[in-house]
Amino acid sequence: DAVRESLIASMSRDELVGATEQLDTDEIADLAPDLPQHVIRDVFKSLPIEEREQLRAAMSYPEDSVGALMDFNMVHVREDVTLEAVSRYLRRFDELPDHTDQVFVVDRDERFKGVLPINLIVVNEPDTEVGQLMITDVVKLHPDEKAELAAQAFERYDLVSAPVVDEDGKLFGRVTVNVVLDYIREESDTELLNQAGLLEEEDIFASVWKSAQNRWAWLALNLATAFFASRVIGEFEQTIAQMVALATLMPIVAGIAGNSANQTTTIIIRSLALGQINQGNAKRLMLKELAISGLNGLVWGGFAGLFAYFLYHNVALGVVMTAAMMLNLTLGALVGIGIPLMMQRLGRDPAIGASVLLTAITDSGGFFIFLGLATLFLI
Amino acid sequence: DAVRESLIASMSRDELVGATEQLDTDEIADLAPDLPQHVIRDVFKSLPIEEREQLRAAMSYPEDSVGALMDFNMVHVREDVTLEAVSRYLRRFDELPDHTDQVFVVDRDERFKGVLPINLIVVNEPDTEVGQLMITDVVKLHPDEKAELAAQAFERYDLVSAPVVDEDGKLFGRVTVNVVLDYIREESDTELLNQAGLLEEEDIFASVWKSAQNRWAWLALNLATAFFASRVIGEFEQTIAQMVALATLMPIVAGIAGNSANQTTTIIIRSLALGQINQGNAKRLMLKELAISGLNGLVWGGFAGLFAYFLYHNVALGVVMTAAMMLNLTLGALVGIGIPLMMQRLGRDPAIGASVLLTAITDSGGFFIFLGLATLFLI
Repeated sequence: DAVRESLIASMSRDELVGATEQLDTDEIADLAPDLPQHVIRDVFKSLPIEEREQLRAAMSYPEDSVGALMDFNMVHVREDVTLEAVSRYLRRFDELPDHTDQVFVVDRDERFKGVLPINLIVVNEPDTEVGQLMITDVVKLHPDEKAELAAQAFERYDLVSAPVVDEDGKLFGRVTVNVVLDYIREESDTELLNQAGLLEEEDIFASVWKSAQNRWAWLALNLATAFFASRVIGEFEQTIAQMVALATLMPIVAGIAGNSANQTTTIIIRSLALGQINQGNAKRLMLKELAISGLNGLVWGGFAGLFAYFLYHNVALGVVMTAAMMLNLTLGALVGIGIPLMMQRLGRDPAIGASVLLTAITDSGGFFIFLGLATLFLI
Repeated sequence: DAVRESLIASMSRDELVGATEQLDTDEIADLAPDLPQHVIRDVFKSLPIEEREQLRAAMSYPEDSVGALMDFNMVHVREDVTLEAVSRYLRRFDELPDHTDQVFVVDRDERFKGVLPINLIVVNEPDTEVGQLMITDVVKLHPDEKAELAAQAFERYDLVSAPVVDEDGKLFGRVTVNVVLDYIREESDTELLNQAGLLEEEDIFASVWKSAQNRWAWLALNLATAFFASRVIGEFEQTIAQMVALATLMPIVAGIAGNSANQTTTIIIRSLALGQINQGNAKRLMLKELAISGLNGLVWGGFAGLFAYFLYHNVALGVVMTAAMMLNLTLGALVGIGIPLMMQRLGRDPAIGASVLLTAITDSGGFFIFLGLATLFLI
């Protein structure tokens, strides 16, 4: 993308208009956000009326909609013609558009009727009529649908191409598997980058200054939550001054619960994406994650308690350590489920920012629980 | 997968053999790891010789190789026949195998010569010979190649199917885009799960006990590194006892560097996967990440230093805080680049376990640097 931007920046107005003339409308629409306004205007004027309409349509769809994945290179035929006639028609093309595994069947008003796989043209006798062979029970996409839904349809039904139909039932465009493949790859890349707090794609060739800015929002947010956690500890300075061992043990309580909560939230976000969570099982799920965190608290909290005991030969300290681990793991499970569920109810992407919030809560919570228990029972 | 396992467990031997008889050899190969030995033996006996060979071949490939993605449903023709003859041959099929966008051209010895896209059969005159139209400059996969390479080829060249050729140049099988799509989706899921320390796919319906075990390896590892970091703090108990403020500030130093290092490592792992890193630019990259971490250290370390100063009205403490942040961010950048590069040189997957190691180093390192500087200059 950075390459594309600098290429565009280096080209003159006429060169740009000339270059875009060789592209399909859906490709121009993809490029449009990077092109200067006046170039888009010139390109618009240079297109035939029909393509102008297509370009206007394609440019109006948000990035994660079916409309943005769509192209207009579909071949369509009528249902009352023979395969012979279809073959004659197809032979007028030098080459069919890429990924033409099927032609679309439409009526006189361009209303979508069904699809005719190219393979059926090949294996059937030439005098068969399209209507006899066409498949009407097919996946139809709508330009306003989420791109993710289209991706799921391609995966589930092993599609190579699928028709896009508008609200009047008219054939509008098509989506092909190569675009879906790129979409899925990009989505999963974005997810990984976002999880590490990288706002956008940044490659190793970006400048130091640009890279740093890309990473700052996240670091600033983390610094703010770290300051807060630091103030929580600050409230217990008296306690720590009397028992310095607490300072050495408190990061364990915070850290393990953070990791455990992160595991919970990853499972929940994934289940939400797969549509596996509903009103009916949300409560059972909550109980299950609480049970797991209870078990983890017993096992790893037990280990941590023993560790504390053997280091400082103080039974009460060991017990406080174990109790704090159990409580903080439980807190982690609660927010690990609660945050993504709440995000989804608010209509937000549950994956974005979940881990910052989570760590903020398990850190501050862990310090508060551990130092609080210590103040009550050890001092 | 869990559903499949319990289904298989509930079926009798005869039912299983009966069910597998309806599957293709490549599908049986996918199922094989879940089937009881004696069922596989029976299935083997029930297959014709050619399919036995295919099954044996398909079962011998590791999960992430091209061989594991391969199927054997390819249609092949000779180059010296006309399209007319090819059409007649294809009409003998009721239906072509799914994702047959091209037929494969082979010679008498089954050596792969090229491909003939179905679309070309449709748009060309029936008396044209296959040899005139066939495309010889195509992507050929080998069964031992990494599946990821195949996925990249499908993405780059927008393929629907690709031939798999053995070491003698013979056509062996094919890979289709639907399998590649599933592979990419599964890989990215696995990556997200592994990053959160979940060993394998675990859905919300798994039992508490199974889920807990799935998460334990990671928690145990984290606990071990947390114990280590705790002992680093323990070495400075004297210092903390004299200046409790240090205990409140030390998690900030550790946390921000951990996040920053994680960003670095995510970029590096991604660039390694895309093949963007080589001997030539590795050093420049190292310098760039060090520059970013230096900048981050100045900016966020500066903030943290001011925070410390305003809280405790101690200039020296603020300076030590800023210096510790800068040093730990630099350490984070070094290990953030170094760990994935080293992992790759050792032939390991650089993504697995990187974040545990990283956090272990930035935590322990952060505590050591901050408390060490404090001991030298503040006490």
